[in-house]
Amino acid sequence: MIFITRRERFNAAHRLFRPEYSDEKNLEVFGKCSNPNWHGHNYELFVTVKGEIDPTTGFLVNLKKLSVIIRNQVIEKLDHKNINIEVDFMQGKLASTENLAVGIWQELMPHVTALSAHLHCVKVVESENNFVEYFGE
Amino acid sequence: MIFITRRERFNAAHRLFRPEYSDEKNLEVFGKCSNPNWHGHNYELFVTVKGEIDPTTGFLVNLKKLSVIIRNQVIEKLDHKNINIEVDFMQGKLASTENLAVGIWQELMPHVTALSAHLHCVKVVESENNFVEYFGE
Amino acid sequence: MIFITRRERFNAAHRLFRPEYSDEKNLEVFGKCSNPNWHGHNYELFVTVKGEIDPTTGFLVNLKKLSVIIRNQVIEKLDHKNINIEVDFMQGKLASTENLAVGIWQELMPHVTALSAHLHCVKVVESENNFVEYFGE
Amino acid sequence: MIFITRRERFNAAHRLFRPEYSDEKNLEVFGKCSNPNWHGHNYELFVTVKGEIDPTTGFLVNLKKLSVIIRNQVIEKLDHKNINIEVDFMQGKLASTENLAVGIWQELMPHVTALSAHLHCVKVVESENNFVEYFGE
Amino acid sequence: MIFITRRERFNAAHRLFRPEYSDEKNLEVFGKCSNPNWHGHNYELFVTVKGEIDPTTGFLVNLKKLSVIIRNQVIEKLDHKNINIEVDFMQGKLASTENLAVGIWQELMPHVTALSAHLHCVKVVESENNFVEYFGE
Amino acid sequence: MIFITRRERFNAAHRLFRPEYSDEKNLEVFGKCSNPNWHGHNYELFVTVKGEIDPTTGFLVNLKKLSVIIRNQVIEKLDHKNINIEVDFMQGKLASTENLAVGIWQELMPHVTALSAHLHCVKVVESENNFVEYFGE
Repeated sequence: MIFITRRERFNAAHRLFRPEYSDEKNLEVFGKCSNPNWHGHNYELFVTVKGEIDPTTGFLVNLKKLSVIIRNQVIEKLDHKNINIEVDFMQGKLASTENLAVGIWQELMPHVTALSAHLHCVKVVESENNFVEYFGE
Repeated sequence: MIFITRRERFNAAHRLFRPEYSDEKNLEVFGKCSNPNWHGHNYELFVTVKGEIDPTTGFLVNLKKLSVIIRNQVIEKLDHKNINIEVDFMQGKLASTENLAVGIWQELMPHVTALSAHLHCVKVVESENNFVEYFGE
Repeated sequence: MIFITRRERFNAAHRLFRPEYSDEKNLEVFGKCSNPNWHGHNYELFVTVKGEIDPTTGFLVNLKKLSVIIRNQVIEKLDHKNINIEVDFMQGKLASTENLAVGIWQELMPHVTALSAHLHCVKVVESENNFVEYFGE
Repeated sequence: MIFITRRERFNAAHRLFRPEYSDEKNLEVFGKCSNPNWHGHNYELFVTVKGEIDPTTGFLVNLKKLSVIIRNQVIEKLDHKNINIEVDFMQGKLASTENLAVGIWQELMPHVTALSAHLHCVKVVESENNFVEYFGE
Repeated sequence: MIFITRRERFNAAHRLFRPEYSDEKNLEVFGKCSNPNWHGHNYELFVTVKGEIDPTTGFLVNLKKLSVIIRNQVIEKLDHKNINIEVDFMQGKLASTENLAVGIWQELMPHVTALSAHLHCVKVVESENNFVEYFGE
Repeated sequence: MIFITRRERFNAAHRLFRPEYSDEKNLEVFGKCSNPNWHGHNYELFVTVKGEIDPTTGFLVNLKKLSVIIRNQVIEKLDHKNINIEVDFMQGKLASTENLAVGIWQELMPHVTALSAHLHCVKVVESENNFVEYFGE
């Protein structure tokens, strides 16, 4: 059993808020992250898959193919976008890093399985001081 | 003559576009940075000042005071904000990294001079692949 | 179950030595880290907590509150201090990175639990080449 | 139980290919990594060991000794070398990062055990976008 | 006058040696960098251009176009290649980081000028401990 | 004319204070950096030299020799030391990063000149947020 991780990046705008709250209430609960005019981040995404090494290639998985899956399934939807407004798999959810990690896991899961590997971890880095990891359960 | 640099950070949303252009024209000129729903970045700001070492303190300038100036004059205006909509010194300008560096220079200049130091460089890092430097002329 | 990590930093002096050893013996066992006049580091502290996402906020835990706990309980005691002399929870212990990680865990544990989260990992980075992780058991 | 990690680095050339394949077939399977004239990387190696803290030293393990083991057993064999041609423990294997991690584990295992510690993880970072972890099973 | 920098990366093999020297002499002059079986690096390339901000776009230069120039003129020739054998603009030269920086400058110069900008600096980072800068004179 | 930079590192303790001041006065002027029990940092030192490329070697200067000079002349004096008490070239000076950069310049200058290169810049990084550069005048 071996683990391989691929990093991809996306730059996006978001806002943390509940629509039924007033701006004051949102500010109290979510702090400056609730700014109604949005703010944004350079996000880093680390996707870890696990499995056996294929003796023919020496690979767990072809990283080029893994990269294409990550780009097609999540980066294209997130990069240079507004997470609250434009990202289909985040509709109806709070645009927190926690929910983003879970959402990305769900988007990637079937495609990683089709590569004959197991999705192990989705790590989303929001800033040099904060990151979230989700292991699917 | 010695040079000292202080790093501060801000997370902001922005959009590159000209209001008189159509969305298609903005996309053609500014690429995905023109997304009408905004996107954002973790910006890093490096402010370099120069001058003589004060023999009483061993400092060119008290870094705590320099940090307070940078935070009060620019970080508070930029952090968790929308650069196009909310930042006074960027009104009427394209929200490019180049214009941001020049705008930050103009905001900081009188306050750094009041510290008896010379502002030497404002460097704005937009991503791990891009940064802008402005030396005031 | 989701994992979120917060980074904080502290700069401190320390020395590795046993008071009952001679300077020569300390040098033999602890190398240059035993220098009687101290040395120091820029430490990075990564605190990971785990739990369920709160559907009201989209958060596992309010990171601002977690940051305040880490700063109040450990950073204020460690930052710009001498670990051997001034840090209450390190008294009577060797000031190794290993003991520091365990000590920080014990300081943080009751306060993280009060946030309704589980402390998962304390990681202390002493230099770009060395770090310690403690998982509480 | 505590975990300590030591980083070491090596710069090496390699090539991914199967000798029985044509150049075209190697290009199809391994992409530009199959270049017959080699390419190379600045590899980072993170070795994690686990065990109990020795109350006499405050150490899990003397990091200087761990560093010497890593350098003698693997860095000297890999640094400024051609992985395919010159590294004894990689002979007859594809020079993938996955196989490299497993090979380094096997080289280090008996020597780490002799230090009275348990080898926990070998992590090989090939680029800022890719890394492999092996936990020995 | 403003300065903007774009980072690109390439992974390559090389060797430092003079063909008229014996292996022993090459080892004496170039150290382990003379290994006849090659070694390699993850190189980082920082290209800085300078000029006036275009008031229509807020840009000094369209970074996308600058990136395409760097990739077409130098990255494609260097990435996953052997610098000594395969890179046209390094033929007949020692494959040192110094010569690489000068060679990249010469490749980029006419194309950056065609963008209506001035090439200011080519910086080549060979490892976390070494880099070279060339300013064209 | 080409510029090459070598990075070295040292971990040291220090304190900012004037002996004729009271502890209260030192705290007022130097903040928490005046802690009488010391604190410390992982310092990074970047030494830049400039000159012509030697056509025989492709080098501006043999980096191995430059590294030995930096280690012998400054790193051995600073690493795992107390800057105020133990470093000969800092005696009688405030242990600020500014004075450290100037002191290191003076230590290195004659030895770099003996290598037939020109010392261009000494950069001392005290933390991820602060660094000082000195160009010798």
